[in-house]
Amino acid sequence: MTAQVGARLRSDARDNRGRILAVARLAFAADGLDVPIREIARRADVGVATVYRHFGTKETLLAEAFAEQLTTCSSIVAEGLAAADPWRGFSLVIERLMELHALDRGFARAFTSALPEAAGFAEDRDRTLRMLLELVRRAKAAGPLRPDFVLEDVSLALMANEGIRAETPQLRVAASRRFAALMLQSFQADPVASPLPPPVRLPLSR
Amino acid sequence: MTAQVGARLRSDARDNRGRILAVARLAFAADGLDVPIREIARRADVGVATVYRHFGTKETLLAEAFAEQLTTCSSIVAEGLAAADPWRGFSLVIERLMELHALDRGFARAFTSALPEAAGFAEDRDRTLRMLLELVRRAKAAGPLRPDFVLEDVSLALMANEGIRAETPQLRVAASRRFAALMLQSFQADPVASPLPPPVRLPLSR
Repeated sequence: MTAQVGARLRSDARDNRGRILAVARLAFAADGLDVPIREIARRADVGVATVYRHFGTKETLLAEAFAEQLTTCSSIVAEGLAAADPWRGFSLVIERLMELHALDRGFARAFTSALPEAAGFAEDRDRTLRMLLELVRRAKAAGPLRPDFVLEDVSLALMANEGIRAETPQLRVAASRRFAALMLQSFQADPVASPLPPPVRLPLSR
Repeated sequence: MTAQVGARLRSDARDNRGRILAVARLAFAADGLDVPIREIARRADVGVATVYRHFGTKETLLAEAFAEQLTTCSSIVAEGLAAADPWRGFSLVIERLMELHALDRGFARAFTSALPEAAGFAEDRDRTLRMLLELVRRAKAAGPLRPDFVLEDVSLALMANEGIRAETPQLRVAASRRFAALMLQSFQADPVASPLPPPVRLPLSR
């Protein structure tokens, strides 16, 4: 094999990898995480074996397809944690996560699912969750966040956000915005609020 | 055709109709409204033509499959409207609708969708919505329901409720219960509450 042919093969492989990722992102966002590898291969115009050669497992493909959104999530939580007022920081996180998730249903589903095999994905997500937990602690200590709030409530709110359907992405984001404002209202400490039914362990918190 | 054969044929037709409805309920509840007629026919062990002969359209099949749950919804709202305290009545309606919907995802999806062709279904649902609107009016007039609450917020809450996933139906109901309590908290009038982002027109309110 000449150096030129080798370079050409490497460049084709890079193109394939990029195209598979782009196709996978669109497919998961539009049709959820159940889209099979063979369908992604078909849409990317490559063989199923090529997808497996590049990504090994569907979980790895998911993790790589959503790497950017996961970084965005992480930045959102880091920004919330950096806010001088923890309740303001917490509100910002809820509002922006819901908006991000409303725009990408595939990512939303991946974020609130247990994807243990996608180790990189789980680690990034867990680091984000640890920051979020610290923000929750501070917002409770400062007073405005209700004392019986638990991390599962973020999971509950994000899953619920996924259920909201509207005719266009714009309307979905607008509906999500109102929903986020309502959820934040419900999360506020209120001396006369009734106690909540107990939280339930949900995938995000595993 | 003898009277006996005629009776036998009518009895077979009744059996088929009942079996198709039972199968359709289970299929829609487990797999959503997209389950095709041919799959329902297959599971009910009848031909596709038999399903169409009994129900004419998929919308009619949906309406008949969910007739009982729709009656339950209607009773829940009627009971809420009959409560002496309108806020208590309203809370009861939200809690019980969410529980009912958490147990039957197919019905939940049908209830929050526009199914215009299923005329009977739409009429029943609209009558229930009119009662709900009256309950909302009373709960606002009495004070505890926030003045900027709109019927779309029930739609939003019910759709959001559909997004909640858990490992078992029991856990889903438990998670829905906490979610309902949070939503009710958010719906309460609060003189220091921030104004909400504008509501969005959603299928339920069409």
